[in-house]
Amino acid sequence: MTRQTVRDAGEFGLIDRIHAALPEDVRTSSALAIGIGDDTSVWTPPQGEQLLITTDALIEGVHFDLAWHDWRSLGWKSLAVNVSDIAAMGGQPALAEIALGLPADTLVDDVLAFYQGMADLAGPLSVVIAGGDIVGSPTAVMVNVTVIGHTVGGRFLTRSGAKPGDLIAVSGTLGAAAAGLRLLQLPEDNARRRATTAGALIDALLHPVPRVALHQALLAHGATAAMDLSDGLLGDLPKILAMSQVAATVTIDSVPVAASVRALFPDDWQQMALRGGEDYELLFTAPESQIAAIVAAAESMGQMVTVIGRIEAQAGDHDTLRLLGSSGEPVHLPQHAFEHFGAG
Amino acid sequence: MTRQTVRDAGEFGLIDRIHAALPEDVRTSSALAIGIGDDTSVWTPPQGEQLLITTDALIEGVHFDLAWHDWRSLGWKSLAVNVSDIAAMGGQPALAEIALGLPADTLVDDVLAFYQGMADLAGPLSVVIAGGDIVGSPTAVMVNVTVIGHTVGGRFLTRSGAKPGDLIAVSGTLGAAAAGLRLLQLPEDNARRRATTAGALIDALLHPVPRVALHQALLAHGATAAMDLSDGLLGDLPKILAMSQVAATVTIDSVPVAASVRALFPDDWQQMALRGGEDYELLFTAPESQIAAIVAAAESMGQMVTVIGRIEAQAGDHDTLRLLGSSGEPVHLPQHAFEHFGAG
Repeated sequence: MTRQTVRDAGEFGLIDRIHAALPEDVRTSSALAIGIGDDTSVWTPPQGEQLLITTDALIEGVHFDLAWHDWRSLGWKSLAVNVSDIAAMGGQPALAEIALGLPADTLVDDVLAFYQGMADLAGPLSVVIAGGDIVGSPTAVMVNVTVIGHTVGGRFLTRSGAKPGDLIAVSGTLGAAAAGLRLLQLPEDNARRRATTAGALIDALLHPVPRVALHQALLAHGATAAMDLSDGLLGDLPKILAMSQVAATVTIDSVPVAASVRALFPDDWQQMALRGGEDYELLFTAPESQIAAIVAAAESMGQMVTVIGRIEAQAGDHDTLRLLGSSGEPVHLPQHAFEHFGAG
Repeated sequence: MTRQTVRDAGEFGLIDRIHAALPEDVRTSSALAIGIGDDTSVWTPPQGEQLLITTDALIEGVHFDLAWHDWRSLGWKSLAVNVSDIAAMGGQPALAEIALGLPADTLVDDVLAFYQGMADLAGPLSVVIAGGDIVGSPTAVMVNVTVIGHTVGGRFLTRSGAKPGDLIAVSGTLGAAAAGLRLLQLPEDNARRRATTAGALIDALLHPVPRVALHQALLAHGATAAMDLSDGLLGDLPKILAMSQVAATVTIDSVPVAASVRALFPDDWQQMALRGGEDYELLFTAPESQIAAIVAAAESMGQMVTVIGRIEAQAGDHDTLRLLGSSGEPVHLPQHAFEHFGAG
């Protein structure tokens, strides 16, 4: 009998084990187009069109610290990370169910602020908070949000459609949330923490904006695969490569990083951009012929899209993700992302 | 500024405050027939028929103790309590999303056993496990399950339809799960724990069977309101009374209790039946003219249904729930149910 722990297996190793252990009729059905492993499930009810369903858990001490995450921004973010999953499939979020585990000495006003933060995001997106569950928790605050969305015109975008020759692109800039987290960990009188640009970086961490409209534009313009960036570029891009059974090259100097991140963290900005999580920007692939139209569509929304690499065919034992320097020379970094169980 | 805690407010007081604080457009929509407050949400997607959605959180140390809840039965129960909510609306469960918070030293085999327990229930019900989230948790195991179901023929059964004159009935017997919990808290060499009937009572706690088919039969035979019993009869019946704006009388001697509960707990069996939670039996109301047909339908499934009282019109300041003894005399018990935050 194996005594392997979840720390040993890691999040994705564990999910693979679970997938393999479940009877096929419990993890697949003719109504389930996408099951375990993508941003959302895609399911067709007996009467009606395809729905997108996603759930995310956030636990105090693991995903947030109430010393810097005020309750209102925690509410925003708890909903935003799920909406971002729906957006990553090209869907329109519609409905949220909220489960909260609360220590008994939690203040009611804090709980109401949490819901206010959800409402700040839900209102403009026309997402309805439809129900949930509130239970006691011994010590840590626990938040679990489930969001249901629907496709627009019956189409959706998975992680598995990337093709050799496609370009790889991201929206916005990367590393801002990681920089914001680092700033929050500094003493309040630290010079960097007091920089005029610090507030915007902290806000990038606390109030990510799901790219709902941009994802739908991508879908309309022929993108082949997409996901939202929650575990960092070097953590997430391999998921698209694995699901699509392809390889990739990424030119690391082309990865867009905000000037404020470079200025405040001259030694770490590239690590933040490549490995920092929680940007909730869009990572996608599209045929080269479509990129100009996608960039134009993004610009018309005031959003930036940057090409960072290219999808290649898988070739035997080689690394599936090759990083290139500015002169095209190979760069070797250990592959590493935020790992929920402290492995790696 | 109020400094009220969630312990002070209690679960249902807190839910009322949240409901009142949410902007109307965030808690209601034309597509949402049932929002916060019933067993499930009822939502109609843009294309298609009504869906039922429910979510329940279970936290180690609050809802279960791994000293007696083996992982496989924890998986069963985590899914069962959600399926029971779908069943309580007269729906057919279809899809589950599972979020798990796990301490890093959790054994992989235990996690796989958890999913096996889910599959034990999901397979026969044709419920598909479609996705989820697995995250680290500092100490307590946290389980959050969301189940989506659909109506059968477009109809569903809420807590708000009880009418004066309706009879009140329950399925099965009450108090077995509470007796099972008490047995698990006794030393293993205790005589009651070693009784031949103890195993079935412990099983009632660990492996509740959602009454999916029975609820659908109720719906077909004109029941007016229904819910599943999770917080005990005296905790749950007032929720139907409040939502339906009616009162009720219950003859406590008519509440069905297993002979083994009476025999093992001669002093406490009635409290267990009235206040013990987690039976996941069905509590419903129906016009007197329909009861015979409902009892016959239940019997054809091998299930017991017992009339325990009657819905009355609300009358001013009187208690909405009156308990009667065997001679019709009023019995006064403090209203009390399992309270998640330790209030009451």
